Amino acid sequence: MTQTSSILDANAFTGTSVDGSLVRRRERALGPAYRLFYREPVELVRGSGVHVYDADGREYLDAYNNVACVGHAHPRVVEAVARQVGRITTHTRYLDASLVGYAERLLATFPAALDRVMLTCTGSEANDLALRLAFAATGGTGVIVTEEAYHGNTALVTGTSPSLGAGAAPGEHVWTVPAPDPVRRPGTPAEVAARFTAAVATALEEMAAAGVRPAALLVDTILSSDGVHAHPGGPGGLLAGAVSAVRRAGGVLVADEVQPGFARTGEHVWGFERHGLVPEIATLGKPMGGGLPIAAVVAQEAVLAPFAGTTPYFNTFGGTHVSIAAATAVLDVIEAEGLQRRAADVGAVLAEALRDVAARHPVAADVRGAGLYLGVELVAEPGSTEPGGALAADVVNGMRARGVLTSVCGRFGNTLKVRPPLVFGLRDVERYCTQLDGVLTDLGW
Amino acid sequence: MTQTSSILDANAFTGTSVDGSLVRRRERALGPAYRLFYREPVELVRGSGVHVYDADGREYLDAYNNVACVGHAHPRVVEAVARQVGRITTHTRYLDASLVGYAERLLATFPAALDRVMLTCTGSEANDLALRLAFAATGGTGVIVTEEAYHGNTALVTGTSPSLGAGAAPGEHVWTVPAPDPVRRPGTPAEVAARFTAAVATALEEMAAAGVRPAALLVDTILSSDGVHAHPGGPGGLLAGAVSAVRRAGGVLVADEVQPGFARTGEHVWGFERHGLVPEIATLGKPMGGGLPIAAVVAQEAVLAPFAGTTPYFNTFGGTHVSIAAATAVLDVIEAEGLQRRAADVGAVLAEALRDVAARHPVAADVRGAGLYLGVELVAEPGSTEPGGALAADVVNGMRARGVLTSVCGRFGNTLKVRPPLVFGLRDVERYCTQLDGVLTDLGW
Repeated sequence: MTQTSSILDANAFTGTSVDGSLVRRRERALGPAYRLFYREPVELVRGSGVHVYDADGREYLDAYNNVACVGHAHPRVVEAVARQVGRITTHTRYLDASLVGYAERLLATFPAALDRVMLTCTGSEANDLALRLAFAATGGTGVIVTEEAYHGNTALVTGTSPSLGAGAAPGEHVWTVPAPDPVRRPGTPAEVAARFTAAVATALEEMAAAGVRPAALLVDTILSSDGVHAHPGGPGGLLAGAVSAVRRAGGVLVADEVQPGFARTGEHVWGFERHGLVPEIATLGKPMGGGLPIAAVVAQEAVLAPFAGTTPYFNTFGGTHVSIAAATAVLDVIEAEGLQRRAADVGAVLAEALRDVAARHPVAADVRGAGLYLGVELVAEPGSTEPGGALAADVVNGMRARGVLTSVCGRFGNTLKVRPPLVFGLRDVERYCTQLDGVLTDLGW
Repeated sequence: MTQTSSILDANAFTGTSVDGSLVRRRERALGPAYRLFYREPVELVRGSGVHVYDADGREYLDAYNNVACVGHAHPRVVEAVARQVGRITTHTRYLDASLVGYAERLLATFPAALDRVMLTCTGSEANDLALRLAFAATGGTGVIVTEEAYHGNTALVTGTSPSLGAGAAPGEHVWTVPAPDPVRRPGTPAEVAARFTAAVATALEEMAAAGVRPAALLVDTILSSDGVHAHPGGPGGLLAGAVSAVRRAGGVLVADEVQPGFARTGEHVWGFERHGLVPEIATLGKPMGGGLPIAAVVAQEAVLAPFAGTTPYFNTFGGTHVSIAAATAVLDVIEAEGLQRRAADVGAVLAEALRDVAARHPVAADVRGAGLYLGVELVAEPGSTEPGGALAADVVNGMRARGVLTSVCGRFGNTLKVRPPLVFGLRDVERYCTQLDGVLTDLGW
């Protein structure tokens, strides 16, 4: 693996493109900020359920894409989008019963205290707006995020996304805290939680010393880009102590549910529920529209009011009819097909199967996660704690060659990110694990 | 009209909602940042071409919505979206020939110097990214915008959107300059341009005095929210002198084409072309996908490089297949139906017809614009220069009652904003002007 400054680069194409090739044309048209997955990039032209197909008709098992949470090209999503786009798609300055109905239905999946929703198009817009709600509600400006957090691409939230690497300067009032590291800093759940709480307390002290008032702990509730740290669920979860400290100091919890949300963790619809917490603000995104661009901020009325009562908010495409139609179909399918239960059940089988692979290949030093969101952390060699970043890159490219799409995450780019559509089944578990086993064997481990 | 703090409120529903009504349910679910158009809000459920229909089956002429630029539910857009969503819609980390093809085709509509495009979902994201390109390219942080500008809803660009009102604090390094005001500060085109240039020069001097390096003049090239100021086109246009001054001071021009772009102004595809200028950066949005959420930043390679060469950029839904399919269909229709020419031709007839109405009702003190983007400025009474904000609110609500959808803009909320789908025809011109004539007569003018 080439040296990279960002985990976004850890699974990036770094080859030389050929004149006239699609890769070269893409580089010329889009410029250098864009990345492609894999040493040999994939051109996907069709999908169905957990399967995607490239331009040559080759089939792949998709174990990475959470946006198509109910499966690629799900007939109910396709039909809802096609029907709505043939009728009308406008904006929230006109009344729309489907928007209001969806908003009410979405809010019903949250604890009662979270009773307002604002619609955006992207998780980035949702986190950007959420922080401004937090600023207005607390009078503070200080934000705490994890060391390898990713919360989006606007100017404000790029400053809360250290995983973007050295090019993305941290925000002026942003403090970072280490995520758990079960390989290099093992401990009981209580010890790991205590360390996280202590790190947040230290950040709060530094803020106080710098004269910065805390506004929010902004955290992905399964710590996706930090390497997938689900932590055992329940009231004594990873975040409880840290959140108490933030609240005592006047800040709020912004739960970033863009990746863990919408039933993926199996036990609950929302990741924060695993921690036994009710956030002041939650942000939603990727899977919300099953592929259509829609995202949201859900907040407690009193937290929303200081911002929303003084600043009109309009987002031309936020809550447009066609996105609401898609999002409604996604909720329909999650319910009709029992996908939350499926995420729990199939996720448990997948975790067990990955642990079997890890037992045969001890370079896989840790298997963790919740539901259908798992991480497999690789080390440089068995028994070592040295991160296996180069190995992870070899593994994801080997999996790609074997027809399985997966990627990496974590501070060292050494954790396989297993985040498939929620319709992933037992045959898919077997296929993923068989190929992972084969790749690790091929690589000599 | 009630006193409002923002032009976004100028045509807002301010009534009291009834328990259990859709309006009340919406207020409860979405909170107080949201606005509805009209004293009696409209619930739109279907559209076709320039016509939209409410839940009771009533038909309206749409003279406001530019997103559906090729007309509501255009069959080619509908078909492209339905077909693509049934195949796949993923993201830019996989190769996509349709994305690359679209990017090349879009860039071909720009002057050759503008040779890179980055895809976002909203105009807000586009302007947010554009400013960061400008910051990185110039080393500056100072931004100049017009007094009633609107450039979006992220934290960064809310600071460049004084039209949002007192709740949206201006950015730290944001200077504002007055837009032209043909009613209260008339002058020849050269005089108006000289005033604008002088205001920008003053802003640059103030920046220098404050130790702030200029980064950009960020300007909607038809000054939409300032009240639609097209200015006579050509090299001696409104912006040329100001842009020269900004460039001499080290800054760049960011041309916000979110509203004027995609052939609306008739003479050209892009609004900046009317001014005889080539911007370093242009931002696109609303009409780009004909209703699907897609937007973009187009930039010169050398201006893009300092940002894009150091910061990876990923936008999950930016350039997703389904949005590209819609955007491709929009370009197809604009070409196949000759909509740029139509915007010029029908726009000229519309402007003339509106001037006829104004001649009969001199409270309509000014008719201006380009192509199918026109403004009709109302004063409180004939011969006065007092802004007719209350009258404008009465007019748009009267038009709504007569089955024509239009809205207001400008510093005083007193300019009718006429921005219909580009398939607006001569019968639509007649209908709009007949109803406007009737409303003004009914109101005693």
